[in-house]
Amino acid sequence: IAYTQLKNNKAEMKEIMQLKNYMAEPITPLAQLEQNPDDMKTQMELLIMRIQAEFCRALEKEEDQAWEDEKTADDYDFDKDLFLPSPESKFKVDRWTRKEGGGGITCVLQDGRVFEKAGVNISVVSGTLPPAAVQQMRSRGKNLQSSELPFFAAGVSAVIHPRNPMVPTVHFNYRYFEVRDKDGVQWWFGGGTDLTPYYLNEDDAIHFHLTLKDACDAHDPTYYPKFKKWCDDYFTIPHRGERRGIGGIFFDDIDFPSKEKVFEFITSCAESVVPSYIPIVQKHKDDAYGYHERQWQLLRRGRYVEFNLVYDRGTKFGLHTPEARYESILMSLPLNAKWEYMHEPKQNSPEEKLMRVLKEPRDWLNIEKGKRTVG
Amino acid sequence: IAYTQLKNNKAEMKEIMQLKNYMAEPITPLAQLEQNPDDMKTQMELLIMRIQAEFCRALEKEEDQAWEDEKTADDYDFDKDLFLPSPESKFKVDRWTRKEGGGGITCVLQDGRVFEKAGVNISVVSGTLPPAAVQQMRSRGKNLQSSELPFFAAGVSAVIHPRNPMVPTVHFNYRYFEVRDKDGVQWWFGGGTDLTPYYLNEDDAIHFHLTLKDACDAHDPTYYPKFKKWCDDYFTIPHRGERRGIGGIFFDDIDFPSKEKVFEFITSCAESVVPSYIPIVQKHKDDAYGYHERQWQLLRRGRYVEFNLVYDRGTKFGLHTPEARYESILMSLPLNAKWEYMHEPKQNSPEEKLMRVLKEPRDWLNIEKGKRTVG
Repeated sequence: IAYTQLKNNKAEMKEIMQLKNYMAEPITPLAQLEQNPDDMKTQMELLIMRIQAEFCRALEKEEDQAWEDEKTADDYDFDKDLFLPSPESKFKVDRWTRKEGGGGITCVLQDGRVFEKAGVNISVVSGTLPPAAVQQMRSRGKNLQSSELPFFAAGVSAVIHPRNPMVPTVHFNYRYFEVRDKDGVQWWFGGGTDLTPYYLNEDDAIHFHLTLKDACDAHDPTYYPKFKKWCDDYFTIPHRGERRGIGGIFFDDIDFPSKEKVFEFITSCAESVVPSYIPIVQKHKDDAYGYHERQWQLLRRGRYVEFNLVYDRGTKFGLHTPEARYESILMSLPLNAKWEYMHEPKQNSPEEKLMRVLKEPRDWLNIEKGKRTVG
Repeated sequence: IAYTQLKNNKAEMKEIMQLKNYMAEPITPLAQLEQNPDDMKTQMELLIMRIQAEFCRALEKEEDQAWEDEKTADDYDFDKDLFLPSPESKFKVDRWTRKEGGGGITCVLQDGRVFEKAGVNISVVSGTLPPAAVQQMRSRGKNLQSSELPFFAAGVSAVIHPRNPMVPTVHFNYRYFEVRDKDGVQWWFGGGTDLTPYYLNEDDAIHFHLTLKDACDAHDPTYYPKFKKWCDDYFTIPHRGERRGIGGIFFDDIDFPSKEKVFEFITSCAESVVPSYIPIVQKHKDDAYGYHERQWQLLRRGRYVEFNLVYDRGTKFGLHTPEARYESILMSLPLNAKWEYMHEPKQNSPEEKLMRVLKEPRDWLNIEKGKRTVG
């Protein structure tokens, strides 16, 4: 089969070997990817496959560790002389295709020990842009002439809702877009990573922002301040006058200075997710908490649902697309959420401390003052 | 004060007496209401005040009953020789006003014995229509000429989420609108009542629809079939290809045959809420249920949130209105909700039985066949 034909070619062999570590087979047939190794479509698909796998494995490792810490003699299989594997500690992997072209791989880990719900999705789709999408792109300033626009989009997105209220929720999304109109092909990248804590830990916030800033700075020193502000502006719940979380970076329509340069930039961003987030998980996953903290986490998850269903461009756009795989879009919603009428955190409580930074985003790295507290 | 001036006038005295039973003072000053007793604005405000109070009292009665059934000697105050009142069994009443004109009364009962979250809101507002509202009205076929449009709106709306999964959620809303443009005043009524069960009980469904049909039939025999279909069409979650519940009636822009006739019709509809719903609560509030049924109820409440935040016109319009009282808009959201990735009810389970009628609305009263199973 394919392996035999390739086994003399070391570079290709190496690539095949890597495929074993992906969560599922690539969406685009392997032969097609191999024929166009320099095409950005190929590079992007391989990047999001790798990022998905690395991130899922990093999360599974935390689940495995929690299981290690917890298992007892009852979990030992004396016949087979080994510990039974942990239930619910691995991602469920769904590879799906769509009629019009392409598909995706949705990985969800639900009701785990460390993660209450973790969704990591990639999609590689092509076809003709729905009119609503064209309208949205035009309203962002894109000059698109034709009405029937063939497009290609590849992206990875993830939302991780941990169980312990002392561990923040994280979200990231990195995507590449191509649209062909009569003047040729337009391309751009978009994405971002942002953090939603339930209890504010300033060291964590600084660590998170600093990791993102380092990823940005390697490419352009103007990126972090610009994309940090964009993130604060985007993840706003206008009717409540608050942000969804403590931000991070967010950007869209990046098509400068070159395809390769922007690809290198978003590669750095995507690779910074694990180091920005996993240390925070490890630090807090065993923190003590009680009923009160859990209730607050559930209320804040209600706000997360409000943002995603009422305002998030990707979610709204997805749900209004006919034949969309809504389960992959809605994997971002928490397992549990709560809405209490007129809930107000107590004055000077940790909950109120969080609300203050959600109402007024902070300059975590003292960028505005031209100085840096840490690093 | 006001009472002394009025005590010789029997009819007015009676009206004042009734005010004592409302949940709070009317939004419009009493003197102004008394000066314009025949104005539809006055009639509508008094109707929604009365409906709100009657419905809230009916729900509180169920809470009181549950407390009666449950209390023990521990709840007896020997000093005062009486049973301590039940905690959390009364509506919290918030009377609020808005800068631009008018206000509302929001009543919420949260975490009760019978009702997990019950919200009953009235609002009486006036001002200038926001451009988005004008656009929405034009898209529904309203001929509105000017750009600055003074309006008046009065309505009652309620969403009741019971604790027991065997008791359905109910929603109703009845509203009156006036808009003044250069050609004069346009007016219309809208509203509806609909039921969202977690487990399907066909007798309940028939009782509910029959009560609404009787209210409609007293005014126009074409109303129920038309408004039943409108309800099924409106409360749709397109991305899931399912309805929110088993329907009821829904209508908008009703301005025929006359203001008084339509007012009489919506009065009948609003008065049919208690007889359509409370018997179902009484019948099932003590039904046995377990973890499995509660989990299913929470998942369906997630769908309720999806409909309200993504599709419901009133909610979307409200949240996008500057200075809107979002707590009154979002009181419709359940106390608790859940989202599980790829949840599928088991074949031939009671959960799947419900899904079948949500995917294909049923003609509960056999209207289409020209016959009626019950009544």
